[in-house]
Amino acid sequence: MKIKIINPNTTQKMTENIRAAALRYAHRDTEIYAVSPENGPASIESYYDEYLAIPGVLGEIIKGEKEDIDAYIIACFGDPGLFAAREITNKPVVGIAEAAILTSKIISPNFSIVSVLERSRYMSEQLVRTYGVESWCRSIRSTGLSVLDFEKNPKAGLEALVKAGSEAVQNDAAECILLGCAGFVTFLDEIRNALRVPVLDGVSPAVKMAESLVELGCFTSKICTWQRPENKIITGYPNFMLD
Amino acid sequence: MKIKIINPNTTQKMTENIRAAALRYAHRDTEIYAVSPENGPASIESYYDEYLAIPGVLGEIIKGEKEDIDAYIIACFGDPGLFAAREITNKPVVGIAEAAILTSKIISPNFSIVSVLERSRYMSEQLVRTYGVESWCRSIRSTGLSVLDFEKNPKAGLEALVKAGSEAVQNDAAECILLGCAGFVTFLDEIRNALRVPVLDGVSPAVKMAESLVELGCFTSKICTWQRPENKIITGYPNFMLD
Amino acid sequence: MKIKIINPNTTQKMTENIRAAALRYAHRDTEIYAVSPENGPASIESYYDEYLAIPGVLGEIIKGEKEDIDAYIIACFGDPGLFAAREITNKPVVGIAEAAILTSKIISPNFSIVSVLERSRYMSEQLVRTYGVESWCRSIRSTGLSVLDFEKNPKAGLEALVKAGSEAVQNDAAECILLGCAGFVTFLDEIRNALRVPVLDGVSPAVKMAESLVELGCFTSKICTWQRPENKIITGYPNFMLD
Amino acid sequence: MKIKIINPNTTQKMTENIRAAALRYAHRDTEIYAVSPENGPASIESYYDEYLAIPGVLGEIIKGEKEDIDAYIIACFGDPGLFAAREITNKPVVGIAEAAILTSKIISPNFSIVSVLERSRYMSEQLVRTYGVESWCRSIRSTGLSVLDFEKNPKAGLEALVKAGSEAVQNDAAECILLGCAGFVTFLDEIRNALRVPVLDGVSPAVKMAESLVELGCFTSKICTWQRPENKIITGYPNFMLD
Amino acid sequence: MKIKIINPNTTQKMTENIRAAALRYAHRDTEIYAVSPENGPASIESYYDEYLAIPGVLGEIIKGEKEDIDAYIIACFGDPGLFAAREITNKPVVGIAEAAILTSKIISPNFSIVSVLERSRYMSEQLVRTYGVESWCRSIRSTGLSVLDFEKNPKAGLEALVKAGSEAVQNDAAECILLGCAGFVTFLDEIRNALRVPVLDGVSPAVKMAESLVELGCFTSKICTWQRPENKIITGYPNFMLD
Amino acid sequence: MKIKIINPNTTQKMTENIRAAALRYAHRDTEIYAVSPENGPASIESYYDEYLAIPGVLGEIIKGEKEDIDAYIIACFGDPGLFAAREITNKPVVGIAEAAILTSKIISPNFSIVSVLERSRYMSEQLVRTYGVESWCRSIRSTGLSVLDFEKNPKAGLEALVKAGSEAVQNDAAECILLGCAGFVTFLDEIRNALRVPVLDGVSPAVKMAESLVELGCFTSKICTWQRPENKIITGYPNFMLD
Repeated sequence: MKIKIINPNTTQKMTENIRAAALRYAHRDTEIYAVSPENGPASIESYYDEYLAIPGVLGEIIKGEKEDIDAYIIACFGDPGLFAAREITNKPVVGIAEAAILTSKIISPNFSIVSVLERSRYMSEQLVRTYGVESWCRSIRSTGLSVLDFEKNPKAGLEALVKAGSEAVQNDAAECILLGCAGFVTFLDEIRNALRVPVLDGVSPAVKMAESLVELGCFTSKICTWQRPENKIITGYPNFMLD
Repeated sequence: MKIKIINPNTTQKMTENIRAAALRYAHRDTEIYAVSPENGPASIESYYDEYLAIPGVLGEIIKGEKEDIDAYIIACFGDPGLFAAREITNKPVVGIAEAAILTSKIISPNFSIVSVLERSRYMSEQLVRTYGVESWCRSIRSTGLSVLDFEKNPKAGLEALVKAGSEAVQNDAAECILLGCAGFVTFLDEIRNALRVPVLDGVSPAVKMAESLVELGCFTSKICTWQRPENKIITGYPNFMLD
Repeated sequence: MKIKIINPNTTQKMTENIRAAALRYAHRDTEIYAVSPENGPASIESYYDEYLAIPGVLGEIIKGEKEDIDAYIIACFGDPGLFAAREITNKPVVGIAEAAILTSKIISPNFSIVSVLERSRYMSEQLVRTYGVESWCRSIRSTGLSVLDFEKNPKAGLEALVKAGSEAVQNDAAECILLGCAGFVTFLDEIRNALRVPVLDGVSPAVKMAESLVELGCFTSKICTWQRPENKIITGYPNFMLD
Repeated sequence: MKIKIINPNTTQKMTENIRAAALRYAHRDTEIYAVSPENGPASIESYYDEYLAIPGVLGEIIKGEKEDIDAYIIACFGDPGLFAAREITNKPVVGIAEAAILTSKIISPNFSIVSVLERSRYMSEQLVRTYGVESWCRSIRSTGLSVLDFEKNPKAGLEALVKAGSEAVQNDAAECILLGCAGFVTFLDEIRNALRVPVLDGVSPAVKMAESLVELGCFTSKICTWQRPENKIITGYPNFMLD
Repeated sequence: MKIKIINPNTTQKMTENIRAAALRYAHRDTEIYAVSPENGPASIESYYDEYLAIPGVLGEIIKGEKEDIDAYIIACFGDPGLFAAREITNKPVVGIAEAAILTSKIISPNFSIVSVLERSRYMSEQLVRTYGVESWCRSIRSTGLSVLDFEKNPKAGLEALVKAGSEAVQNDAAECILLGCAGFVTFLDEIRNALRVPVLDGVSPAVKMAESLVELGCFTSKICTWQRPENKIITGYPNFMLD
Repeated sequence: MKIKIINPNTTQKMTENIRAAALRYAHRDTEIYAVSPENGPASIESYYDEYLAIPGVLGEIIKGEKEDIDAYIIACFGDPGLFAAREITNKPVVGIAEAAILTSKIISPNFSIVSVLERSRYMSEQLVRTYGVESWCRSIRSTGLSVLDFEKNPKAGLEALVKAGSEAVQNDAAECILLGCAGFVTFLDEIRNALRVPVLDGVSPAVKMAESLVELGCFTSKICTWQRPENKIITGYPNFMLD
């Protein structure tokens, strides 16, 4: 089985970390293929970043259709372009936010998300609403740090994450913590040690869900919402014409 | 890895069917161990049946704690006793209704459930509400047939299921169909052939979820809601004292 | 009129207190008949306890059908087995949580529940969701004490209840307090004196609702959800076969 | 005990019918005192009618405070002025819509309302929303007839009500029918005979609730929302100054 | 274009302030005609006040139909009588609460309301629910001051408003503040200077919405909910018979 | 005042129609400046189309910041890129779907949307959910025709729209119809003549809202969610670096 993981931003080091996290939990016979689009923002922290990242993500799906891929993973906690990706392939497409949220449901009655900047908190809030899981979510807490801050000072970043997670457990009665950025996966073990509740990153649950769906022989429903887009002229995107 | 599947009713033939369905999708190195409690109703079609089945389910979990089990599956679409089961073990416990619902989310924007009797329709409605996924659910349609009817006349049962599923797709805009009874797993291939949308039973997604959670090293959150029950005198249930 | 009150746990002293509370508000010509099942847990503080208590509750309803009962009350704030009880009798069955919640609606725009252990808080939360009254509920606050703690040290228990109730009024803007355990009925007068808002236990409203429904000539709707369970073999419950 | 029932419209014949319905179910020692305000519309079928009826309703409450009343009932299915009435007295005030809705919860998992004109359907919809019981309500069906039509041709009115009720049961899966106009109480027995589900008018449940609250010693919460209105100059309402 | 603004209370000075605020933002060729009913309370702080103000509001609409009015504004933040007003005219009727809420949506993802007394907080809460915008509203904060308090000591009032607004921004994550009383419009500039988020009164957005609807040629939908009330006898309101 | 209207697709003829519709309702001194991005799809009927259109939309906003624009309108009923647009300018940005929905609230208690293809129906459903106005929306009905179909055969398109609108009024109790595609604005007068309820396109309400917000001196809240994106490297979008 071949799973293509798309890191929607262009920071190659993050792609490497995501690949490593995926490999840690993938089956031996699962081939993990992690890429980052050529074009797009270096990190995703606003709707602006997100929308500029999506064409790159979709381009990687289009390329993937000729690469014998069995399932795709979009590895940014905002799941950018997820619904469009499901339109242009019938292979399962898993977003890491959705994967973390769904997986948490089996091991905890609720979750809180710890995230980067304050503004991301609101984007996660909207994501929770889009997925219709408002009643599962205790809170979304931000560390106030940017993706860059985490790279520059990982130790301070880890501390901020543990602090936000602890507050979610103490003050918001969260019984499970979701790491609200693909990059946080490098801190997974340390955060787990620091908190008294299960902690989930998104990448590893996404890998297991992708594997499971392929093994179950499941494909994306193509009857309506996620059917193939209508064929039409698309100016300025040379490789995006669907046939 | 050893997964114990508990068929909450006492109909051994159904336990066999569930075991067969589980084996079909389980990994080669997953050991499937399917049981049915000694006591309880022959089928579950009412809250009355459900509550009388639950002590048997919980008893099998208690036994399981000495059987070196890695994860449990409760294989009735009402997920009877699920929250209590999660209290008395820290191993993942997967309900087949929850597993089917969560899995569908990746491959379809919504689902409909096809079920047995009209009354079961309302029980499923309440289940959807308990899980907080009202916005994912297009409809719950019943065949009007009892579990016994399906055993007596499988051909008529299959036809009724296909009819209910088709109506959900046509009239309710369902884009994925969930089979609302563990026993329906025997019809899975035929219903898939008859409908134009993905069809999910609960057993096979539950197996994949159980395997995934074990591979991820996840345990049930024990900080509050599902913590171990308080030790106390329980009259009339000789083997149910927790230590 | 004959009302059977079922205390779902096996602690006889609590049954006595419930009977006394019921008699205080019952009509002179209402016969109050309070029982506790032979089997089950000594108190109910988890889903595990709850499910092990329900067969006993249902057994008392089955017996009740030969005892000329006009209405039943299930006297534990989780309303254990309520929907199943309504399936097996057409007489009104009142849960004390439901009764307290419905009664509060007339005298207050909202309510908070004060409860025993922290984990019970989450069970009450789910109950509020099951009943569809999320918008009525300001908060659920726990005392952190077990049922046993209240028996051992009633004075400390009362203080903890008053504290939790005051915080609900001050911090959560609750305008009515519901006592989230049948056993709290012994503190009713003292808590009322201590708080500036109406305080409702569940037993007394349940008695009035049961009397009212009987006087109105109302019976449980039997057309679908709560119709009589299908007749079937139920192993291990010698007296639970319905005819 | 003295209960004052206020028919918010000025049609004396309807006041008589309401009084008769109340007496049928009231305790022997309950004094029923039914009135209609001097001023207001002859029937209530629009928001316009409702708002012009409310000052009269409130005037009757103000008078009631000098009449030794123990509880009030507002006997129009829109519960006009209910929240204001609760501000100006600490005695329980019961609206017949709220009473029917709350009572139905014990005997049925859901309800439908049958009402007069199509426009009333929308007013009831908003009422259900105001009370936060959207999840209990299967449908609101109108007969298309005005209050006057029912008076002119009761036989046709009864037939229309039975038809609307049957459709709610058949098509909307209603398991209990609420009569959405105080005037319908005269048809109660005939509709009950015609339908296979419980049928509730609002007047009789309201009487039982009023009696129950008085017997329980309950008063309206005065801590905030329904506290006494601020004293101020009110021009044009000579008897409406509160002291 | 001629817009009639109805201040529902009888305090003429407030009517003057509202007129001034309206003129500030109205088009040059918009004629602003601000009135206060002859009868009603001096201020509106309870449901009681609100219901006693509504007949006066409706009377001004009825008069307006002979005054060549193009659109109406009801200038109290509870939008008293709004739905009834829409029944008796087909001209657009704008409530200032609704106008502020709708306008905020374009410039902010959410809002908080700052209001007068604590009890008004609950009335605003119910308004938000009636309008179905619960998910837009971060919080409703009260100053604890009455309308009269604001008149007597405007400086203290302004300070209290700025404090409540700041807390909504800091603690509740509000990104826009709505002034929850028509009288607050006099503080608009000062509050805007004091807070770091947009601040909206209701009067000026209402004026722009009324102008816009007239320019768009829009009329109130008359097909059902807000159709003209049925003609009937209305005792005690000599000028309220509709023809 | 200068309003820039961005038609997110590249079909110039549609841009012309949108400009004409805008001019019809704009104030005399409002300058309407309608553009279409150089790059993007010829029409928007899927998430795929939408995401490929958004960079073009955002590019036009970035250009607009040097063109002395007072407010922006995004003229496609899916409001593509709306939240990102609000991040990169502090001028009001109005989406035509949001404008139509908000405006309808003043003149109707609810709305239905008539749309193009069946798949668009689901996109609109998600939009309604994102905006938190589920309770305002009666239904979303599709004509089953693509944007191209409407261009090729306008007469058949008009008929299909009138049919869908009539069904929404008859079967779904819609009291106002929203035209779910910017291109439908050419049919506005004819649809209004054919239906008995108000009909709103999105372009004209958006123009009035943009004008109103500018006249009110309102700017987008910049405190958190829609604050300026973090400055970072964005590969492949030469003109998209923000300073």
